[in-house]
This record gives sequence, structure tokens and C-alpha cells, in this order.
Amino acid sequence: MPLFLNNDDVEKVITMKDTMEALEILYRELGEGKAVGAPRSDLHVPTAAAKNAEAPMAHYLKSMSGASPHFGTAALRFSSDIVTWRPAGDGIRREKLPTMPGNRWLGIVLLFSSENGELLAIMNDGVLQRMRVGGANGVATKYLARKDAETVGLIGSGWQAGTQVMAVCEARKIKKIKCYSPTKAHREAFARETSALVGVEIVPVDTQDEAVRNVDIIITSTNSRKPFLGKSSLVEGIHLSSMQRDEADDEALRICNPLVLHTQLTENNSTSSELAQFEREDFKLRDHPTTRGIDWKSLPTLPDLLCGRIQGRESEKQITGFVNNIGLGAQFAAVGAKVYAAAKARGIGREVPLDWFTQDVHP
Amino acid sequence: MPLFLNNDDVEKVITMKDTMEALEILYRELGEGKAVGAPRSDLHVPTAAAKNAEAPMAHYLKSMSGASPHFGTAALRFSSDIVTWRPAGDGIRREKLPTMPGNRWLGIVLLFSSENGELLAIMNDGVLQRMRVGGANGVATKYLARKDAETVGLIGSGWQAGTQVMAVCEARKIKKIKCYSPTKAHREAFARETSALVGVEIVPVDTQDEAVRNVDIIITSTNSRKPFLGKSSLVEGIHLSSMQRDEADDEALRICNPLVLHTQLTENNSTSSELAQFEREDFKLRDHPTTRGIDWKSLPTLPDLLCGRIQGRESEKQITGFVNNIGLGAQFAAVGAKVYAAAKARGIGREVPLDWFTQDVHP
Repeated sequence: MPLFLNNDDVEKVITMKDTMEALEILYRELGEGKAVGAPRSDLHVPTAAAKNAEAPMAHYLKSMSGASPHFGTAALRFSSDIVTWRPAGDGIRREKLPTMPGNRWLGIVLLFSSENGELLAIMNDGVLQRMRVGGANGVATKYLARKDAETVGLIGSGWQAGTQVMAVCEARKIKKIKCYSPTKAHREAFARETSALVGVEIVPVDTQDEAVRNVDIIITSTNSRKPFLGKSSLVEGIHLSSMQRDEADDEALRICNPLVLHTQLTENNSTSSELAQFEREDFKLRDHPTTRGIDWKSLPTLPDLLCGRIQGRESEKQITGFVNNIGLGAQFAAVGAKVYAAAKARGIGREVPLDWFTQDVHP
Repeated sequence: MPLFLNNDDVEKVITMKDTMEALEILYRELGEGKAVGAPRSDLHVPTAAAKNAEAPMAHYLKSMSGASPHFGTAALRFSSDIVTWRPAGDGIRREKLPTMPGNRWLGIVLLFSSENGELLAIMNDGVLQRMRVGGANGVATKYLARKDAETVGLIGSGWQAGTQVMAVCEARKIKKIKCYSPTKAHREAFARETSALVGVEIVPVDTQDEAVRNVDIIITSTNSRKPFLGKSSLVEGIHLSSMQRDEADDEALRICNPLVLHTQLTENNSTSSELAQFEREDFKLRDHPTTRGIDWKSLPTLPDLLCGRIQGRESEKQITGFVNNIGLGAQFAAVGAKVYAAAKARGIGREVPLDWFTQDVHP
């Protein structure tokens, strides 16, 4: 019987250790061509209300799927959001509005068994999504950072920064983390709360330079659309772990060897009506980062690294880098399988009859 | 609150009239670039059991999405099946196995509101899927057959043939249908049952030639992979309505004017691991029909016809043709909206809290 798991349920059973173990297996399978994923599908249509609204508004239905033979699972992740486009920095950025009752969003992962095709679970995607982003950076760190790395400079103190810290602490025996973000109160609260969570000292610092000075690993976890980290911060032996492409500048990325990208799979199924101009503006920001000097398509990927097509770190002096870009449906198949197994074992979640979803009609 | 609607529920409220009304609006919207759809995503991975099985076996996760601004809805349709490939005719054909408890299959349509993004309904896709196939042919018939058409020659007596009959009877005032299919008992049972359903005389006949002689409309509704209908059957003023591409041969299709294809959207997201050779065999059969003399990509589509980019029938003597090919996610947005409204009005279905699907976590 399919299990409904909300974010609280997922939070109870998910660990960064499990997440990274699952992703490590998955990236190897992806590299070997065993695990698979389809490009993301994005649909936008204007809402009826959009005609009278000041800013353009659209319904945005997103879906992505992937499967992992190792875990014997496939996942279909979807979200249904009302979005608007608002000026941000030097462009326009898409924003998801909490339009569901109670100011909520709708994002779901459906997990299927590849043994008999049955629907195993229906999970909120929020907690999973953040864990797998952090987890992907964590797996890269495991293969690229120095074995004796113990200090971290973190730029960013948002929601995603928390899982980045969990992941780096899982990948290496971290002793100290310095954290910088523009708002003092934010970085202080983040340091306090996250330190309690992972049991590692986190020190809020007043400048970016201070954060990245004398550390073994730099983590950037921001939504910046303008690179802010230059090559002067990347000293011998360091590992750079970026959550997205617009954080380190061209020069900084070019001295990383290897510089590994999360995936070469692209979002090429975008379809929309009447909103083309907004999408283009948004797209420019999301997918044509200002660091155009980098030929992203030429970069090796995390699957390449995990299946041995490229070497990870080979010396103490090397500067290595990882850049996370877009997500993969297959991540939810792998991490979702771990969550499902743990929830089943602990009796967590709400069951609904499988019959509600199946039919006696040949499809 | 999202409504669970199983096939029985859908069957209770869906009518061919509603289906064709919805599709007619949708195809016009598609032609105008207002309604949208993403290409279908197909994932295949081998099952663990496949290693020891005689025939190759895979988990097949399919998804497609589309949205209709007119109806203010978007749909995500997915199915999760265990498939095998078996010799069929001169190739290998994929077969979906009923592996769910009770020998069932899993196919679902999720219907969303484009006003606030909420999930409106979770419906089995079996009944809907058959109605929208018949309905698409019906809409084409409305625009392409002679206004005074009243006789039909039907080849095929399978499950899909039933909705083809419903559709043609909705499109024109049909007085008599002759039905041929290879197995006498099948065509007789079909004629009896379907006649009772639509209130039109249906006569089972012994040969294909007899079925298509002296009729105003020919309907082919088979799963043949070899064309069986030649141009000699297409007399002045007739309309040919094909459920798929391999029924009428090249010569027959070439004398149709216009010859309208359902859609040019292709299934270009197929991804699979270790099963590439089976997929290729299957693909050859499905997407490279033996009627290769036809340049499918050059054909106008049903959306082109509905929005007026091409003319429908202009004279009594013209021979017109329509060929259904692959389905569109947007069909489920349009027809699903009708079904949802009718089910709500009649209090049909099972509600679950929307909260089960939503979250307070920003996606």
C-alpha cells in the first residue's frame, strides 16, 4: 500500500549518511549507463488572473523522472506552482508563490518499485530536495577534497547551507567552519543552530575573505547570479564546492583540476504559451550565468568521477572544484528508496490502498 | 480536496459529447499556441528478475504533461508498467504485464488547477485514454467528413473500436455501420453490444471489402503493423478515419486531401539502460511504420485544421483522411476538466486532504 510521507515524516527518517550512500551508488550507476533519467519537463501557461495582474503570472508544472536498478526504484517528481516574474538585480527572476491553502506549495515525489511497477510512496519533495542537493556536493567532496581536510569556509547561511554543512561533515572529519553571509543576524543564527545540529564549531565571521582564509574546503551556497569568489581564494590543496554555477568566477573555476560538474543533462523540454519573453529573461539568469568563459559542456560530471572515467584528487597540492547545477529525477529514486525503507521499518506515514491507483483496464 | 476517481467513476460521468467538445476547444488552442504540451518521457530499466527470465523484462515509467488555458487546467499523466518484448509478426512487440495485485495495471492522470496550482483530481487513465483517442478521430470527422455522411465501414472490433463508433455517431447523424474484424464471434458480439450503446444499427460482415463498400466514412481501429487498406476502397467523397499510421497503405493515404495527422509532437525523451536493442526493435514497429512512403513531418495537424491554418472539406467529391498517431498530455487537461466538473457536481469520487500533497517548505 502506497505510503504518504510529508516533510515531517521524511525529516524523521532521512540522514545525510544515507543520502550520500545512496547518491554515491547512483552516480556510479549513472556513469555506467545503468541508472537513467529523462530531461525535465517545464510547462508554463498564463493564469486567467494574469490578465489583470501587474506582474505576469503563470501556472508552472514541472516534472522529472529517473530510475536506479540498484535500488530497484523509479521516481517521478513533480511540482505545481503559480509563478511570477519580478525584477531582481540586473534581470527578471521567477518567483514561486505559496498559493495553496495555508500558504503552501505543492511538490511531490512518487516512488515506484521497478520489480512490479507498484507505487510505493507519495512524498513531499521539500526535505528530500534539499538533502540531495547537499548530498551531491558531499559525494563530490568525498572524492575531491584532501583526506585530511578539517576546516571549511562557508559563504551563505540560507536553507540550503544547512545541508551543505551536514554533507561536508559526513564527507570529512571537520573541526571548524567559518561562515559568512551579508546579514549579521542571519549568519549568527545559522552558526548557532547548525553547530548544535552537526556538533561542529561554526563561527560567524564579518567578511567573505575572513571566511575563506586558511581553510581546506570552500563551500558556496547562495542564490547569487553574479560570481563573487575569485581565484585568489583558491590556495594550494583546497577544494571548492559550489552549489550553483554563478558563485566562483571564470578564473577561479579555470584553476580547478579537475573541475567536475554535477550533470550534463539539460532542461530542454521547456514549453510555454504567451510568456516566452519572461521565460527568456529568467532563462538568461538561470542558464546563461555571467561566467560564460567556462565551456560547461566540456566538463566531466560526477558520474564520470564515480565510475572512474576521470581521476579524483591525486596530490596534496591540487586545487579541485565541483559545481552543482540542475537536479536529476534519479536522485529521488535512490534517496527516496532509503527514506521509504526507513519509514516502512519504523511504521511512519499514512497508507492508502494501492487499488485507488491501479485499474483492470489494459493501458 | 483532491478527488480520487477510478475508471468506474470516470465512466459514470464522461460522455463522448463532452470529450469532443473539450478536444475541439483544445486543438484550436494548440493551433493558436495557447495550450501547450511537453514531449512524453519514457524510462526503461531492467528488473532484477529479468536476469533469469526467458524474455527481457523492464520497468517502464512513462509520463506526459500538458495544459489548457481555456479550461484552466494542467495534467500530468503517468503509468508504471512491467513490460516484456515478444515476437509479433515480423518484429518484436512490447507488452505490458498486469503485475499489480489482482492482475492490474497502474495508470494515472493528475489534474491541476492553473488558477492556484492545486491538485484537483487523481484519476485512473484507462477510460479517459480510450475516450480521447476516439474523440480525436471524432473531431477530425466533424471537420472532414461530408455533412450528409450517414454510413460507416468499420475495420476492427477491439476495445478502442467502441469509442470510435461513439465518436463518429457524435460527429454525424449515422444510420448504419458495417463492421469487419477477422474473428466472427468478436465482430458479432461487438456489433450487438455497441449497437445497444449508441442506438445505431451495426451489422457484422464477413469481409473487409464488404465493410467498406458504399459507405461515407471508413474507420480503421486496429493494432496492425502492416497496412491493409488500399486506395481502391477510397471512393469519391469518402472520409478515412485511421486510429494509427499502419492501417491504410501509402497509395491510399496519398489520395487523401487534406490528409491530417493528429500531432507532430514526437516521443523524443526515450531513455533506457541495457535494453537498447529491444527498444530499437519495438521502435521500428511503432514509429517507423511500413508506410514509409509518407513524409509524416510534412502533414498538417488537427490543431492546424481547427485553428484554420488549413481548410477542411471544401467539396462533396473530395477524399479526406485523418491519421491519429501519439497522444498528448494536454488532452487529459481538457477532457479531465470536464470529468472533474461532472464528478464534483454529482458528488462522485473519494476525497483526500489537499494537505497530504502540499508543504510549507519553499520548493
